[in-house]
Amino acid sequence: MAIDIGGTKIAGALVHPDGTMTATTRRATPRGADAEGVMAAVAEVVADLSASPLWASAVRCGIGSAGPVDTSRGTVSPVNIGAWREFPVQERVAAELAARGADLPTVLAGDGVAMTAAEHWLGAARGYANALCMVVSTGVGGGLILDNRLHPGPTGNAGHIGHISVAFDGEPCACGGRGCVESIASGTAIARWALDQGWTPSAGSGTGAAGGANTLRDATAAGVAVAAAQGDPIALAAFDRAGRALAAAIAASATFVETDIAVIGGGVAAAGDTLFGPIRTHLAQYATLSFVQGLRVVPATLGTHAGLIGAAAAATMLSAPPAPVSAPASVSEPSPVSVSATSPEA
Amino acid sequence: MAIDIGGTKIAGALVHPDGTMTATTRRATPRGADAEGVMAAVAEVVADLSASPLWASAVRCGIGSAGPVDTSRGTVSPVNIGAWREFPVQERVAAELAARGADLPTVLAGDGVAMTAAEHWLGAARGYANALCMVVSTGVGGGLILDNRLHPGPTGNAGHIGHISVAFDGEPCACGGRGCVESIASGTAIARWALDQGWTPSAGSGTGAAGGANTLRDATAAGVAVAAAQGDPIALAAFDRAGRALAAAIAASATFVETDIAVIGGGVAAAGDTLFGPIRTHLAQYATLSFVQGLRVVPATLGTHAGLIGAAAAATMLSAPPAPVSAPASVSEPSPVSVSATSPEA
Repeated sequence: MAIDIGGTKIAGALVHPDGTMTATTRRATPRGADAEGVMAAVAEVVADLSASPLWASAVRCGIGSAGPVDTSRGTVSPVNIGAWREFPVQERVAAELAARGADLPTVLAGDGVAMTAAEHWLGAARGYANALCMVVSTGVGGGLILDNRLHPGPTGNAGHIGHISVAFDGEPCACGGRGCVESIASGTAIARWALDQGWTPSAGSGTGAAGGANTLRDATAAGVAVAAAQGDPIALAAFDRAGRALAAAIAASATFVETDIAVIGGGVAAAGDTLFGPIRTHLAQYATLSFVQGLRVVPATLGTHAGLIGAAAAATMLSAPPAPVSAPASVSEPSPVSVSATSPEA
Repeated sequence: MAIDIGGTKIAGALVHPDGTMTATTRRATPRGADAEGVMAAVAEVVADLSASPLWASAVRCGIGSAGPVDTSRGTVSPVNIGAWREFPVQERVAAELAARGADLPTVLAGDGVAMTAAEHWLGAARGYANALCMVVSTGVGGGLILDNRLHPGPTGNAGHIGHISVAFDGEPCACGGRGCVESIASGTAIARWALDQGWTPSAGSGTGAAGGANTLRDATAAGVAVAAAQGDPIALAAFDRAGRALAAAIAASATFVETDIAVIGGGVAAAGDTLFGPIRTHLAQYATLSFVQGLRVVPATLGTHAGLIGAAAAATMLSAPPAPVSAPASVSEPSPVSVSATSPEA
């Protein structure tokens, strides 16, 4: 069973051992509701799932949530769900499950960690023993696979690449830090930098989500990406700068924990070569030591399904004890097994 | 059995289960020798150890070496031992041991990883499940403890904090990268920056190793530290800048892999509060997220013994399979047990 809690929607599904999903359901994340109002939407998702004939066959429940999370206490304080601060979502979901006859073990994971679990199970990080998976969107998040295992860290926030500093003398970040990757390479930062440099959004150029009063001119990273693809020099420079910051961070990950691959998903990654070109061009400037020179950077492959698939995958990966390093080959890793073929070069 | 190979000396010892050492021996690292000439010095160290009455009771051999190393192949290419490039030191040491009747398992570790093993076993990182240990000297190196285990990575270079970039738009580093921690915070970098800013070494101020033609004026980081302690504004600024870069890197480690403590050894750390003051002052500027706010920064406690103790500790930590996370309490961790009391606040 998978529950994926984000700032715009709360989704649920029953996830089969091969990664396919049934009984998928969702609710809009309530706006202006109090903590119990948001929880009521989660309870409705659980109620929907319990109507499935497969409900009784679920063996565990993974809960993925926007962060920060604290998996050591089962609480979440999502930046984009203001009503929840240190909200005990794990305990509350377990109670909802029990009330419907499903007394299952639950696992809480941050959304970056869940996305990482999904990409390692069925996506672009499959087969890599050490991987960084990232979401580059309005923010920048991520997660780590180390030694073939999901590495969430003691509070479930490991891999939080968006808030490491790649510019110790740089501009302040919204987190209170300085020179964070997110403050340079998020979609928000790319659009802001381009506008500051004098870029003018074209009328009707948008492919992104520039809603509200701004639908005619797409002043988002998607609009900058369109302009870059058309050769606009400021737009190209904006993606080059973001690509350099991401390259530095990806190289830092490889230098620091020997990750072999970086998988990037999220809305900004949809810009394709406009983003990946600069990252790959600049990577050699930061990934210099012998042991990181094989580092690869590829797009994520699971898209919007990564949240639910990842919640289920994280539940499986984190609820079974890891196999000893020197165990005989007959002791299998606890990771779920893939049956669908996806290409990391897609 | 422990062998510690560095640019100036090659040391050996038999290390007891309580961390005490006997039969310690050393040779100067040959200058101008070819690869076999350097290996001959290692063989002499092994011969010295084999004369000990305890030789036959050794159960494994840890080899710590200046890096880069490649533990997947058992080779080393130390920056400061030019005669060794991809030198198969592990196989060669094993052959020396076997020739003297000790057919022991061997473990190779980089010196940053070995120092980390030592500080986690008997030093300032003891009791911390997740720790970054660093050496700040002429270069900057390090290693990681994750989930109470030494985390060397697939090639033994994980924790290489000196060559992550904290200034993606910064100055070139000797490694070919840009804005690396080492290029800002090493002793070499501190002294160079101070001199570039107009700092003038005082005659006879030196406490460091300013040798050769420069013995009268200590133009090293140790000289800068003395000047900083006397209130020299450029010297203070040099340590402030290094402290900021180290704070950014230490915060990045905590944000990325949830390390709870950073332990710093090496010659520059001997400057004490001149270095640790700026690091701690600036840490809050980079370690902003809720899960890293308890991050501590403390001096290493094992000093020059860390190399040999660490080689032995790494051999123990890396040769036994880790205990499963959910194992019963009766299954003990493979880490050696400490009997000597050291304070992380020393």
